[in-house]
Amino acid sequence: MVRVGVVGATGYTGVELLRLLLAHPEAEPAVVTSRGNAGERLDALFPNLRGQCDLVFQEPDPAALGECDVVFFATPHGVAHAMAAELLKRGTRVIDLSADFRIKDAQVWEHWYNQPHGAPELLGEAVYGLPELNRAQIPEARLVAVPGCYPTAVTLGFLPLLEQQLVDPLRLVADAKSGVSGAGRKAQVGSLLCEASENFKAYGVAGHRHLPEILQTLSLAARSVPQLTFVPHLVPMIRGILATLYATLAHVEVDLQSVYEQRYRDEPCVDVLPAGSQPETRSVRGTNLCRLAVHRPGGADTAVVVSVIDNLVKGASGQAIQNMNLMFGLPETRGLEAIAVLP
Amino acid sequence: MVRVGVVGATGYTGVELLRLLLAHPEAEPAVVTSRGNAGERLDALFPNLRGQCDLVFQEPDPAALGECDVVFFATPHGVAHAMAAELLKRGTRVIDLSADFRIKDAQVWEHWYNQPHGAPELLGEAVYGLPELNRAQIPEARLVAVPGCYPTAVTLGFLPLLEQQLVDPLRLVADAKSGVSGAGRKAQVGSLLCEASENFKAYGVAGHRHLPEILQTLSLAARSVPQLTFVPHLVPMIRGILATLYATLAHVEVDLQSVYEQRYRDEPCVDVLPAGSQPETRSVRGTNLCRLAVHRPGGADTAVVVSVIDNLVKGASGQAIQNMNLMFGLPETRGLEAIAVLP
Amino acid sequence: MVRVGVVGATGYTGVELLRLLLAHPEAEPAVVTSRGNAGERLDALFPNLRGQCDLVFQEPDPAALGECDVVFFATPHGVAHAMAAELLKRGTRVIDLSADFRIKDAQVWEHWYNQPHGAPELLGEAVYGLPELNRAQIPEARLVAVPGCYPTAVTLGFLPLLEQQLVDPLRLVADAKSGVSGAGRKAQVGSLLCEASENFKAYGVAGHRHLPEILQTLSLAARSVPQLTFVPHLVPMIRGILATLYATLAHVEVDLQSVYEQRYRDEPCVDVLPAGSQPETRSVRGTNLCRLAVHRPGGADTAVVVSVIDNLVKGASGQAIQNMNLMFGLPETRGLEAIAVLP
Amino acid sequence: MVRVGVVGATGYTGVELLRLLLAHPEAEPAVVTSRGNAGERLDALFPNLRGQCDLVFQEPDPAALGECDVVFFATPHGVAHAMAAELLKRGTRVIDLSADFRIKDAQVWEHWYNQPHGAPELLGEAVYGLPELNRAQIPEARLVAVPGCYPTAVTLGFLPLLEQQLVDPLRLVADAKSGVSGAGRKAQVGSLLCEASENFKAYGVAGHRHLPEILQTLSLAARSVPQLTFVPHLVPMIRGILATLYATLAHVEVDLQSVYEQRYRDEPCVDVLPAGSQPETRSVRGTNLCRLAVHRPGGADTAVVVSVIDNLVKGASGQAIQNMNLMFGLPETRGLEAIAVLP
Repeated sequence: MVRVGVVGATGYTGVELLRLLLAHPEAEPAVVTSRGNAGERLDALFPNLRGQCDLVFQEPDPAALGECDVVFFATPHGVAHAMAAELLKRGTRVIDLSADFRIKDAQVWEHWYNQPHGAPELLGEAVYGLPELNRAQIPEARLVAVPGCYPTAVTLGFLPLLEQQLVDPLRLVADAKSGVSGAGRKAQVGSLLCEASENFKAYGVAGHRHLPEILQTLSLAARSVPQLTFVPHLVPMIRGILATLYATLAHVEVDLQSVYEQRYRDEPCVDVLPAGSQPETRSVRGTNLCRLAVHRPGGADTAVVVSVIDNLVKGASGQAIQNMNLMFGLPETRGLEAIAVLP
Repeated sequence: MVRVGVVGATGYTGVELLRLLLAHPEAEPAVVTSRGNAGERLDALFPNLRGQCDLVFQEPDPAALGECDVVFFATPHGVAHAMAAELLKRGTRVIDLSADFRIKDAQVWEHWYNQPHGAPELLGEAVYGLPELNRAQIPEARLVAVPGCYPTAVTLGFLPLLEQQLVDPLRLVADAKSGVSGAGRKAQVGSLLCEASENFKAYGVAGHRHLPEILQTLSLAARSVPQLTFVPHLVPMIRGILATLYATLAHVEVDLQSVYEQRYRDEPCVDVLPAGSQPETRSVRGTNLCRLAVHRPGGADTAVVVSVIDNLVKGASGQAIQNMNLMFGLPETRGLEAIAVLP
Repeated sequence: MVRVGVVGATGYTGVELLRLLLAHPEAEPAVVTSRGNAGERLDALFPNLRGQCDLVFQEPDPAALGECDVVFFATPHGVAHAMAAELLKRGTRVIDLSADFRIKDAQVWEHWYNQPHGAPELLGEAVYGLPELNRAQIPEARLVAVPGCYPTAVTLGFLPLLEQQLVDPLRLVADAKSGVSGAGRKAQVGSLLCEASENFKAYGVAGHRHLPEILQTLSLAARSVPQLTFVPHLVPMIRGILATLYATLAHVEVDLQSVYEQRYRDEPCVDVLPAGSQPETRSVRGTNLCRLAVHRPGGADTAVVVSVIDNLVKGASGQAIQNMNLMFGLPETRGLEAIAVLP
Repeated sequence: MVRVGVVGATGYTGVELLRLLLAHPEAEPAVVTSRGNAGERLDALFPNLRGQCDLVFQEPDPAALGECDVVFFATPHGVAHAMAAELLKRGTRVIDLSADFRIKDAQVWEHWYNQPHGAPELLGEAVYGLPELNRAQIPEARLVAVPGCYPTAVTLGFLPLLEQQLVDPLRLVADAKSGVSGAGRKAQVGSLLCEASENFKAYGVAGHRHLPEILQTLSLAARSVPQLTFVPHLVPMIRGILATLYATLAHVEVDLQSVYEQRYRDEPCVDVLPAGSQPETRSVRGTNLCRLAVHRPGGADTAVVVSVIDNLVKGASGQAIQNMNLMFGLPETRGLEAIAVLP
């Protein structure tokens, strides 16, 4: 049984982690912390957890957390920097769902996140926890940086094209759409039902923090620095990301369907749909799956890839557990087998 | 392993049955039938089931169904009458999610459902599958009539008051609200997103088919014939029923909280919330739970009970499986333990 | 042209007032104030108003407001108390959309709103601005208290029954449902799309501030003090209130349909639907109408009245303008004629 | 007063036409037809119109329609072909909201709409009713083809770039998103609330009927045949289209903001937002506006244009009335001045 701590368990990735961990046959959430809600029962905040556990939020305490085998950080950026180092010293492994260890270049991180990096010395060993790319390094990792939600959907969609250099890497477009839970459980006007339902808009057109993260990964895959136009949009629904990716093919005679099927043949969390399919976000809701379809409209030289994930599962907490499973020698999808609830 | 057939598996209670059965460790859906979609793969219709099974819809064939241990009917009313008799003869047990065997009096059924009853001879042995009321009869039943969605929410809410004769049975009000999935997967204008979202309305004020079903059960509980004003409403959401029940107390010194806690103390699928709580439909989404709260506003002589269920689970498919578990000697909540996905 | 000021124009009733006033042929919003957004353009906050005006929020200043013919308060409770007195002294009339002058008994107000009443001396002259009840007093009023949203829907529904003493006033039930805009534009977790959509719940069962307001008006109508069980619920939509009202008939031979049609025959903002109808909230969205239907299910002795309004229009800003029209000798529905946008 | 007929008034563009016409000070809907609902009152189908008119649906009869000054067709494609010729002979002008006269090449039309073209002889005189492009021809037109919803949003977004040849016309991408009302009021499973809410998906990736229409218009603007990758998506909301357009700049030193502001300076129905803005669909809901913003993320050579309309107004019925105003010498925005209802 893996003994687990969760720091910052009051947000949406936090409650999703706890939902998944409470149903996980080989993990046990032992410590959950929250600065603002210390002393409260978990199920007072999250009524779906009533009857599932008697956990009470406590103040984040390195000693208590240090008795866990692994600690998840579901915190705003900047929080994990200091605490991660402390926990690693105590021999506790760390899986960080925030952005703190995703960007390898501390200066780039500081530019996009507008504050000093608190643990640049750990960047070298931090493993970017995208199992479909870094499965080999994850089992031995002490510190895993779980990819962002948009980066997961966009990267898995572009990977086969860039790894095999089938497209012009300087003309990539990712038109991404996310449910409102991507903005978190923070009380802010823009996330109110009255503002976000019956409405659709783009945001962050001028630059979104997930762009450098995506580019870092795609650069490794393409062995060159791609250019990507990335435009996120807000969808009036709770969960789900759909990314529509556009790329110009370098070779038009390639069989894209086969390329994708080969690339992901052995991936338990990536499902390449049959040719002509349209993935829907609801088909992955609550699951750790990424479903993909690849098209070439009109047989022209533009590839269109559509990629869907649940932003809170494969885009955050589920992927974090997928990493935990790999780190602790468990079957990769243990605790992640639930079928999407539909409708 | 219980070998299961599902007749009429193309509606919402059908796909929900299959989602639950595919994850059930001791049941195996072996035959799924559909007149309209015979020959199609199940996952072509329901993208959440992709990767979970290779089932193909077939025409309803008593021979094939008769090789199952149990057959679920997720059909419109009238269909199960004839086929149930045939299957029972072959030794296959039947769990009917439709209204066909819920009403004990065939004439009452014919009045509300506007057609001749096709199997009045089976009404005697049919067990009304509300485990909280009829747990003793279910294990030996050959034929179980799964309660309707509204009747489940309303009956569980009123039961303690009526069994103990704490209220005036002639002044009951049930103001019930259901998500749109209660209307099924049928293509009809009133269920379109453009008609039902951003809107709220009552319907069936003049009389709803669930009224005689509720009265039949409440009569048994109250040992008298109650009068109930039942007004259902349509909520702009997919799943969930919330029933707000009003009753006039006969004795004002009773401790209602304690009455409810005692009544449901050993019920694994009923959760009485602490005094002062407000149950939310999302707290039971995808689960087989009924959560209840009881209030007496202003300390006056009106009891207000709020009851929530997921209409497709405790209100249909989950309750059907709860019955199956009892009929086949399995733990009552086997396959029904998932935690609600929230948000 | 009526010169209008709006205090607290950054909430949902504020923007709705401005939408209606900007389209009103005989009113001109001249001063809009906001403590938090002073200096900002109105259309920076509310993109629907772009191209409609060049108004800029200013600090609330009695001198500037005092040059208006009338000032609307769309503020949290407690704000209008002091400023209203000041404006009335300057000869400016006041229409208060908050609860500050609705309750005639200052002690009752203080009990429910938990603070001292700031202007008890004005309570005597304040007119409760429900034109269907107080049309005679409104034209001369200096100070109008616009009814709350629930009280408007509930009161208009019960009025005919109570005025004519057709029902037992001690057994009234109002099961009310409101869209989320009723909670205002305040950033709070409970109003987030991720919390309030795909969910339904009751709230305030133990006691809601609109209860004493409803009782005060119904007492006048019934010429006795009624007892009302009032349970509000939160509907996953933006706008709309539907109230389902239950009352026990004293005389069963009455023609309820005719009672309602007679009572509201000359009311331009109340629409009694034909017998057997089900009013829908979307049919009044954006309009100042209350649509009503009255039923007697099964011909029994319980009357069921269903009443719908747009909580931000007839439940707040539209009714405020209806009052303004009456106060300034304009046709009662001037500026309130728009047809609901459907779907 | 313009005397108006509406053929096929039972769909969403039909009811929207009627909502706008009933509020139009210089038009009068005199005849409304429907094959399926002849004999029914209009307000029985559309509860928002109750109290606005006493119109009754009648069978489509050329004689009755021929007494109108203008007849709108809000019909499925193929219906207007035959009736339009008949009405034009009688001297009645025709505004067709369907696709019947949009495509100039009958063969292209037949390819995409899979049936013979019923009135190729009228294609020569039919005017494509996009006032921002064809304002000069509309006043004298006998037959106007109102642009499709996606074509309106996409074309207005691309026009300035293509007219001035600022971008590579062979690398255009239009990622478009529409509310569900774009699919009409037809009863079909895919448009059910339970299928379309809490979900997001692309559709028609392999080819959508609006593509040839967009290309036809853009070809005229660009004076060359562009290549466009067009991917429509379904948004879980009722109304609104947002199109995100991507184009590769030929000249990077151009001031795009100024290009757009100049192009649309005198257009009453196009609003170019300030640099850095994000248009939202709710800001145009119920209005005839197209709001646009143009971006160049990271200062790179990709232009990103975001364009929003209400698909039922500027994308259909409002634009039809804008055309009618021009055809009958009325101010262009008469009857189209309502402010969007927000929230």
